[in-house]
Amino acid sequence: MRLVIIGGSDAGIRAGLRARQLDPITDVQLVVADDYPNFSICGIPYYVSGEVPDWRSLAHRTKDDLESAGLQLYLQERAVGIDVDARTVSTVFGAGETRAIGYDRLIIATGALPNKPPIAGLDQLGADDGVYLLHTMADTFAVTQTLDRGARSAVIVGAGYIGLEMAEALRNRGLDVTVVEQLGQVLPRTLDPKLATLVETELERNGVTVSCDTAVTSIARSDFGLQVNVSLVDQPGSLAADLVLVATGVRPDTQLAVDAGAKTGFGGALFVDTGMRTNLPDVYAAGDCVHTHHRLLDDPTYVPLGTTAHKQGRVAGENAVGGSATYAGSLGTQVVRIFDLVAAATGLRDPEAAGAGYQPATVYSEPYDHKVYYPGATPIALHLTGDTVTGRLLGAQLVGGSSAQIAKRVDILATAIHYGGSVDDIGTLDLSYTPPLGSPYDAVQIAAHAWRDNQIT
Amino acid sequence: MRLVIIGGSDAGIRAGLRARQLDPITDVQLVVADDYPNFSICGIPYYVSGEVPDWRSLAHRTKDDLESAGLQLYLQERAVGIDVDARTVSTVFGAGETRAIGYDRLIIATGALPNKPPIAGLDQLGADDGVYLLHTMADTFAVTQTLDRGARSAVIVGAGYIGLEMAEALRNRGLDVTVVEQLGQVLPRTLDPKLATLVETELERNGVTVSCDTAVTSIARSDFGLQVNVSLVDQPGSLAADLVLVATGVRPDTQLAVDAGAKTGFGGALFVDTGMRTNLPDVYAAGDCVHTHHRLLDDPTYVPLGTTAHKQGRVAGENAVGGSATYAGSLGTQVVRIFDLVAAATGLRDPEAAGAGYQPATVYSEPYDHKVYYPGATPIALHLTGDTVTGRLLGAQLVGGSSAQIAKRVDILATAIHYGGSVDDIGTLDLSYTPPLGSPYDAVQIAAHAWRDNQIT
Repeated sequence: MRLVIIGGSDAGIRAGLRARQLDPITDVQLVVADDYPNFSICGIPYYVSGEVPDWRSLAHRTKDDLESAGLQLYLQERAVGIDVDARTVSTVFGAGETRAIGYDRLIIATGALPNKPPIAGLDQLGADDGVYLLHTMADTFAVTQTLDRGARSAVIVGAGYIGLEMAEALRNRGLDVTVVEQLGQVLPRTLDPKLATLVETELERNGVTVSCDTAVTSIARSDFGLQVNVSLVDQPGSLAADLVLVATGVRPDTQLAVDAGAKTGFGGALFVDTGMRTNLPDVYAAGDCVHTHHRLLDDPTYVPLGTTAHKQGRVAGENAVGGSATYAGSLGTQVVRIFDLVAAATGLRDPEAAGAGYQPATVYSEPYDHKVYYPGATPIALHLTGDTVTGRLLGAQLVGGSSAQIAKRVDILATAIHYGGSVDDIGTLDLSYTPPLGSPYDAVQIAAHAWRDNQIT
Repeated sequence: MRLVIIGGSDAGIRAGLRARQLDPITDVQLVVADDYPNFSICGIPYYVSGEVPDWRSLAHRTKDDLESAGLQLYLQERAVGIDVDARTVSTVFGAGETRAIGYDRLIIATGALPNKPPIAGLDQLGADDGVYLLHTMADTFAVTQTLDRGARSAVIVGAGYIGLEMAEALRNRGLDVTVVEQLGQVLPRTLDPKLATLVETELERNGVTVSCDTAVTSIARSDFGLQVNVSLVDQPGSLAADLVLVATGVRPDTQLAVDAGAKTGFGGALFVDTGMRTNLPDVYAAGDCVHTHHRLLDDPTYVPLGTTAHKQGRVAGENAVGGSATYAGSLGTQVVRIFDLVAAATGLRDPEAAGAGYQPATVYSEPYDHKVYYPGATPIALHLTGDTVTGRLLGAQLVGGSSAQIAKRVDILATAIHYGGSVDDIGTLDLSYTPPLGSPYDAVQIAAHAWRDNQIT
């Protein structure tokens, strides 16, 4: 059996590994566009910051590891066509050479492309000018070279988690950093405004300038670097920078699949069922190129996250070798560390829940991470969203200090949502307690009690 | 409605608060044997160590807080009899005065008493001699006075979590500390031997001498303090100490209730149904004096933990004022921090599971707490126990560094067990990830995959 996988990032590699684990004689061939299979793209900010000194360590597994696991890798080879009838993938490699690779089963894991916002001048500027849409290892090396050449100031367009992680990284490298966000808050797709304010304060406490409600209208080269023209609540302004990073989200990279007849779903992402099957015979897809089934929504949405890509890839790989795995669905769970603060979210935010037909209520509470009498206790800002009709837990957001176990506290709530749990369930969970690390009722349980008390009054 | 509660610790106070919250005109009277209502007994080691400078801050709530919440407190008043027919509790207070307090509903929250192992001489020695069964605030003050008088060495009998927390506390105070444990490992009721070894190493790394397989046969006063005679695998030996702490677990304090006709259940603890009702009319009980319903066991067991006491107290308080709450059941979830290590467990250990009729398998794995390329990654020693017939997750133990979010990682697994989840479910949970705080598959998911892979091979 010949399994061909297009894409060498989280979904593609995971699919290949799972296929070989279940069927060690399957012939697994991966077509990888660059020279960096199985790299941790999420780790790029920490290489740029200098915390990870060697970029090679960003590889989840080395090429040797992958080959030992039975994956045949075609690096720096680009898939340019899929012939579904002939069951071949045509590729380009080397100095324009081409070939057709035959498959019995195909997994498309082409990932995503960075969004390019409508900023005048953006199309004309590139890495040579100090303007980047950070997405690949090649982009990463271009950025670090610019830093090594002595760049002193940066404008980051977009205050999503990648924008903020890069703001921290560049600040750690000593640059003056300004984050420009078109919407009214940082992390606009992750946090409610009240909690986002805490993140904004932490950025500013660490010397990052944050400008929300600000659209970038144009970018141009000046004699002294780059000039970023902005519009702050309709007031024009201008920022100077040696380096501009555009981090305004991603969109699914689907052209190849669509040209072969693949159906698309939410947001133009590839349609797949929960077995990661496309509409094309024996063709699966996984990762940032597909729409995402969500445990709290009837219809798929789009959640391009590494965690999701791994799980979808695992399902695709299993099913491609004859399995019957099902993707359990996403909750959009995510966490980001910004300097000494950690922000995390899972499930639906209040407006999302309302839009999906729930009747949500969201209650704010501020429980401590552990007993206040023990040194180092810090408050956790917590939004809990539940359905007022059924009592079902729908979502949560937590912002707290880096010692407050935020990342795994959000996971407690994500686990309860996974099982369809109610807000009241949370208070009854048998969670661990010792004074330096928690409370008899954990912070998440105090939040659940607060939600319920708020419904009664 | 007159609600009388006997006991002013976690279960009693929580019951009273819940009753008043639901029914603000209920007359709630608490009979509290000492002067320290609502004290965090779990915090005592951190006061002894000096990390909590003021013992008063160990109060979850002050007397004023409790009275403002509508609880009438009778401090230093001891309940000595319950007349179920007359619906009165007779008490002794002050200089031997007595009275009878009438009730419509009664909640018994008398807690537990420290076990007194059969050690020759133990009955004849007390605080004046430097021998303590640490249980009350009065015991605590006696210990700290002994420390303030310059005690230089301590023997701790029992390597349960209280024994080990006190070992750390006394070591932090500069004492030579030896922990003597009759069984073959530390934390014998919490961890499997393989994981307990890590805790033992951490204790020794911090200068605590640990002697397992060692029974204390007698304690006697010598001219230079105390002589603790031990038997190490049948070899007699002797330890000198200025201070001996006996921490060999607790047993339910039930005499008062039993004398009034209360039925007992597991281990002599008071029988209660899941509504915390005893067999006596209008009499409820909660906390360390009652047996514990367990989500993975058909029959009650005994799990004297603060977390359990709070939840049972809440149910008792709710039902005493006409509610219909149900105690959701324990998983025995617990966590202890020993110096720079955190050890946690939830659910059943392999032999417990086998004894309860499951067909368990336990698999060891050692995933990192976060991506190894990011500085500070530490391995987590992890035992996952699942049922080989149904695939159900039955239990887990985790030991790792203090930055490894062990306390809340065990809670993810406790939450899954709460909902009857399978080991395979764990791998499908949508958990949060950022390189400094996790992995695309979290450590608990890597452990779940390892368990499954181990079943296949």
